[in-house]
Amino acid sequence: MRQALNLAKSVSGQTSPNPPVGAVVVKDGEILGFGAHLKAGEAHAEVHALQMAGDKARGATIYITLEPCSHHGKTPPCADLIIDKEISRVVIAVMDPNEKVAGRGIKKLQSAGVNVEWGVLQKEAAAVNQAFFHYTRTKTPYVTMKSAVSLDGKTATHMGDSKWITSEAARLDVHHYRHTHDAILLGVNTVVADNPSLTTRLPGGGENPLRIILDSDLRTPLDANVVNDQKADTWIFTGSAITAEQASPYERAGVSVIPFDFLDPTAILNYLGSQKVMSLFVEGGATVNGSFLESGKINQLVQYMAPKLIGGKNAPASIAGSGFMSMTETLAMEIKHVEMIGEDLKIMAEPRKDDADVYGNN
Amino acid sequence: MRQALNLAKSVSGQTSPNPPVGAVVVKDGEILGFGAHLKAGEAHAEVHALQMAGDKARGATIYITLEPCSHHGKTPPCADLIIDKEISRVVIAVMDPNEKVAGRGIKKLQSAGVNVEWGVLQKEAAAVNQAFFHYTRTKTPYVTMKSAVSLDGKTATHMGDSKWITSEAARLDVHHYRHTHDAILLGVNTVVADNPSLTTRLPGGGENPLRIILDSDLRTPLDANVVNDQKADTWIFTGSAITAEQASPYERAGVSVIPFDFLDPTAILNYLGSQKVMSLFVEGGATVNGSFLESGKINQLVQYMAPKLIGGKNAPASIAGSGFMSMTETLAMEIKHVEMIGEDLKIMAEPRKDDADVYGNN
Amino acid sequence: MRQALNLAKSVSGQTSPNPPVGAVVVKDGEILGFGAHLKAGEAHAEVHALQMAGDKARGATIYITLEPCSHHGKTPPCADLIIDKEISRVVIAVMDPNEKVAGRGIKKLQSAGVNVEWGVLQKEAAAVNQAFFHYTRTKTPYVTMKSAVSLDGKTATHMGDSKWITSEAARLDVHHYRHTHDAILLGVNTVVADNPSLTTRLPGGGENPLRIILDSDLRTPLDANVVNDQKADTWIFTGSAITAEQASPYERAGVSVIPFDFLDPTAILNYLGSQKVMSLFVEGGATVNGSFLESGKINQLVQYMAPKLIGGKNAPASIAGSGFMSMTETLAMEIKHVEMIGEDLKIMAEPRKDDADVYGNN
Amino acid sequence: MRQALNLAKSVSGQTSPNPPVGAVVVKDGEILGFGAHLKAGEAHAEVHALQMAGDKARGATIYITLEPCSHHGKTPPCADLIIDKEISRVVIAVMDPNEKVAGRGIKKLQSAGVNVEWGVLQKEAAAVNQAFFHYTRTKTPYVTMKSAVSLDGKTATHMGDSKWITSEAARLDVHHYRHTHDAILLGVNTVVADNPSLTTRLPGGGENPLRIILDSDLRTPLDANVVNDQKADTWIFTGSAITAEQASPYERAGVSVIPFDFLDPTAILNYLGSQKVMSLFVEGGATVNGSFLESGKINQLVQYMAPKLIGGKNAPASIAGSGFMSMTETLAMEIKHVEMIGEDLKIMAEPRKDDADVYGNN
Ligand SMILES: [Zn+2]
Ligand SMILES: [Zn+2]
Ligand SMILES: [Zn+2]
Ligand SMILES: [Zn+2]
Repeated sequence: MRQALNLAKSVSGQTSPNPPVGAVVVKDGEILGFGAHLKAGEAHAEVHALQMAGDKARGATIYITLEPCSHHGKTPPCADLIIDKEISRVVIAVMDPNEKVAGRGIKKLQSAGVNVEWGVLQKEAAAVNQAFFHYTRTKTPYVTMKSAVSLDGKTATHMGDSKWITSEAARLDVHHYRHTHDAILLGVNTVVADNPSLTTRLPGGGENPLRIILDSDLRTPLDANVVNDQKADTWIFTGSAITAEQASPYERAGVSVIPFDFLDPTAILNYLGSQKVMSLFVEGGATVNGSFLESGKINQLVQYMAPKLIGGKNAPASIAGSGFMSMTETLAMEIKHVEMIGEDLKIMAEPRKDDADVYGNN
Repeated sequence: MRQALNLAKSVSGQTSPNPPVGAVVVKDGEILGFGAHLKAGEAHAEVHALQMAGDKARGATIYITLEPCSHHGKTPPCADLIIDKEISRVVIAVMDPNEKVAGRGIKKLQSAGVNVEWGVLQKEAAAVNQAFFHYTRTKTPYVTMKSAVSLDGKTATHMGDSKWITSEAARLDVHHYRHTHDAILLGVNTVVADNPSLTTRLPGGGENPLRIILDSDLRTPLDANVVNDQKADTWIFTGSAITAEQASPYERAGVSVIPFDFLDPTAILNYLGSQKVMSLFVEGGATVNGSFLESGKINQLVQYMAPKLIGGKNAPASIAGSGFMSMTETLAMEIKHVEMIGEDLKIMAEPRKDDADVYGNN
Repeated sequence: MRQALNLAKSVSGQTSPNPPVGAVVVKDGEILGFGAHLKAGEAHAEVHALQMAGDKARGATIYITLEPCSHHGKTPPCADLIIDKEISRVVIAVMDPNEKVAGRGIKKLQSAGVNVEWGVLQKEAAAVNQAFFHYTRTKTPYVTMKSAVSLDGKTATHMGDSKWITSEAARLDVHHYRHTHDAILLGVNTVVADNPSLTTRLPGGGENPLRIILDSDLRTPLDANVVNDQKADTWIFTGSAITAEQASPYERAGVSVIPFDFLDPTAILNYLGSQKVMSLFVEGGATVNGSFLESGKINQLVQYMAPKLIGGKNAPASIAGSGFMSMTETLAMEIKHVEMIGEDLKIMAEPRKDDADVYGNN
Repeated sequence: MRQALNLAKSVSGQTSPNPPVGAVVVKDGEILGFGAHLKAGEAHAEVHALQMAGDKARGATIYITLEPCSHHGKTPPCADLIIDKEISRVVIAVMDPNEKVAGRGIKKLQSAGVNVEWGVLQKEAAAVNQAFFHYTRTKTPYVTMKSAVSLDGKTATHMGDSKWITSEAARLDVHHYRHTHDAILLGVNTVVADNPSLTTRLPGGGENPLRIILDSDLRTPLDANVVNDQKADTWIFTGSAITAEQASPYERAGVSVIPFDFLDPTAILNYLGSQKVMSLFVEGGATVNGSFLESGKINQLVQYMAPKLIGGKNAPASIAGSGFMSMTETLAMEIKHVEMIGEDLKIMAEPRKDDADVYGNN
């Protein structure tokens, strides 16, 4: 199961809107086949693993990180394949998070006389599938908010100088999140100020996320990288007053312009969920961060702190907006992980969820 | 020497304006005496250790964390005592930081035929004496700035609610710094808002620091704890326009009112240095912190971060003032230590000093 | 490459006389296929990985833990397959240890215009292939000697009581070595005394090693488990005086009886090498261990120490024979790893090899 | 209390037959005095600490690692001194192990109105006093057995070559045990073979243990170091047949010759206990070790293992004698600590004591 989880982790970020799943076929202590789900629409992990095992699969055990599917989707149900191959034992890390189908794969296997165990390394498997489980439960993307600040919590000097707050090592680390998230979101002000390309630049390449610009008045420059570089899809979310005429030059450049009645996090996340965007990386700026905080729509905070003191009453912080009024209203977090990346500090935190199960249900 | 350093550390905070020093007398692998300098004006570490050793000290080795004194101060020179006691070998961690007398104790011992070694665990000894070395070199106190903020760098909501940002465990940790610093400094606004007593409340008691209030217009309430509770000395630093008449009710309560032409960190630290205040703990608020940052007078930052997100463009940060204008001007720090204190994160950082020697000289 | 090494490790023990190899195909930061060599005679790691990748492999990078083969064996050369699939870059951990073919796979790929890198995580890859590299270099099996002793180095009391020296956890750990070694060897005395089955009993099964009994006078009982249980092949190595008549009842039971002129470690290892036995697990007893020690044919020692003191001048130790005469002749080892397994101590040591390269050449 | 324990540890080995004790006097979070018991017959820890504190001790707290004495011994009772000095609170790590007086010091203090707490860091304090507690309970010394063996448990080759089994670092480590034990014991054979001096040679000197030679037939050479070097006392334990005439040349050299009816561990330990020898370091050889093992008189095993394989049926092991007959009789140990000392492995083990209290009582 460790090896199956390993395989699942290694494909995290390339399977959306499907979850990363790994499978290993074993008989008499020998590995007969490995598999992982590599890409939505393609073969499931079980299919690869059983194909590699071939005829030897008969009588073997298959370890799978997620309950095998039992319904006809883009591919035939894996439960049927397992039964056909005469696998004698199935070990599953975690059940399907979709309550409607949870347990069905297991029942189908058991009805066919297959020995089934589940709950093995369940917590680790749930961690790999965090975004998928959140999406399945809420039909909206899992939201990771990023901030990069000085020790005193500033993102720039009061004069607006913000270049290279954090070190190159920390900036590289950010690209890992771009790779593992389906979409990246930022406000038009950052596009105007920095003209970022928002692509994933890891040493070995990486999946580019869908780029989403919050731009109620459609001020994104037509010559911005996100409009012109064709490196990834770009969607501009605007207010409802934007006309088709205003939108047309963007759409000619291949960019979707999508008007919202209320351009707030709830509406945005509902829309993205409907478009099968399973995970969203919010890279700011401060106003956008503020609106996500106030709406309570943050699943994870990734904060890089540079060893600098900037000071200044008017130097901007990472999260603006109006903010909470009293300490009891503030969002209670739990610090999950702290590490040094070069000279910078990286903090990972999540909203405190005291009683949630592995799927995130309370 | 480990044991001598240990003794020195244990008296850190109670010896000012003298440094914490430890000494151990050893002969034939047996410990004959321990000592530490316990209180300014009282016996030096060597005196205690040699007294415990008694006549057996003859021919023994003494380990001392700092070069023994060679001049007549409040106590006779320890170098002479060591010679009298016929100690045959002296092992010293670090030389006296005062360049005028550095090496004199060693020379005196050597002239008397005593075998002397120095530089053993020098770095560790210098760390114990950090504040003393800074004070000796600059004639101004070593400054530790404290901040307690949310993950997003706020000290309060935009409505001013700041109660219990950090956990009780983190607040207790602060008292350790009050114990080891000679003086604590804050602005009158915090006195007006919170009426703090600023005493050290560790489980086993602790040394109360001298309380310094920056209050240019003498607005400190006469019924404030710092004026009335008699628990420690209080000095109010005011502007030069304050009259003797205004000051007299405070002075009748035992509080010193000290006018400054320019009430800035440089003037403050010079004055405190002249009063033999060796270390200063700056507990804010944001404006005071800002002025210390801008004047570059910070030797250490101790920052507690509570696992909360507050948000808000107008929520205050820990360091205000005007701040630096460009990123190149900001104060470059080095993160020295990170730890969890309960659910809070504690970060210790110092200004980067790439080429300084153990005394802090560049 | 980490993932490829991971895959290689997971099949260690099931590929003999081939090495465990892993391969991963990656393009644009996405994994397209995984593979490992699962069984001698079957597809190489590259074949599985490229098959999973399918047409997308074109232009991708393949990470392989060992240089791909360039000659026609039981399977066509992997180098050709890589070229056919139009892979654009090949990253190799370690070159083929066979000096005759080392570098040929790389040259073939380069001639075809494929970009090739090697030496990535070379040391880790060599560790996974230790036995294979030793076998390739020497044509004899890699020898791991096991001992299970009390703290005072005894394997039994002077009365011969040896039951359960070590804990169940330590005994289970031994089965891992049976799984990863091709053959297990012990003396006939142990067979007579304990009638062991010498099979691998890990929770998930495991590969049974070939069982080799050193029995110069053919005293192995015909009703011994190793003769009758059919659970794995058994070879009995005898002296040259054994007649075909004596051997025939064993051979009827399916056991091979193989006579040796000199039944010493050198002859045994040469013979096993000729039979493609790549790794040998020597489980004793003391006389057998002694002869392997004296002949210098030990590549690794795995010693379990039970928290017991047995004492006794005549209580047996783990290694008997005549032993070395002077301390300078003794076999100098290097302790590589120490861990507690339950209440027992496990020590792993190897003969000191100060200047060997990753293949074990000096 | 940490600091008091620290002081106690630092004098371990120099206080026998008294226990190592530390004391610290604290008031208002400030340390007023340190003390440790330095030498039997001299001032107790409390005396030194209170003397350093002087008049300030009034109203202070004293932390002591062991219950203060309440009876007149070589020094007046510390409980009385504490009361005289008007200490207001006493914090004690562990009560006196002597059941007759345990709790008396505490009661005396309480009767005088002093606030007393005990049990603080009790386990750590008991570990520092292990030997003293054992001695108090049993009236016999605490026995540490040392062995130095190869990985295969041999102390020499079958030809008797044993020089430098372990590295210099491991041999240096042994001297630490000589320093902290009152007496060292070995058999006459080792004296004849190696002519050791058995002194403590630590970099900073160290206490030489009393040297005890088991020599039933009085074969110790008159020119042996232990007879002639005057570096420490030597006692030779012989059989009862030795005459005064035989003994007299040894006694003229200052060596005590002490005849035993039965020269076995029980008699030896009883005698040493009567002579106030609190701890004994048994350095072998194998026969001596065997007799201690068989009599069950081992409190701690310190074993150094050199990374060598010696082999040989007749190569000697560390523990000889007749040994136990069955595995159930063997001495069950618990491995307490394992570390590498240079290239050697050091193992510390103690007889398993499942239900003992901090004093070692079952
Ligand atoms: Zn499926
Ligand atoms: Zn002095
Ligand atoms: Zn191949
Ligand atoms: Zn006492």
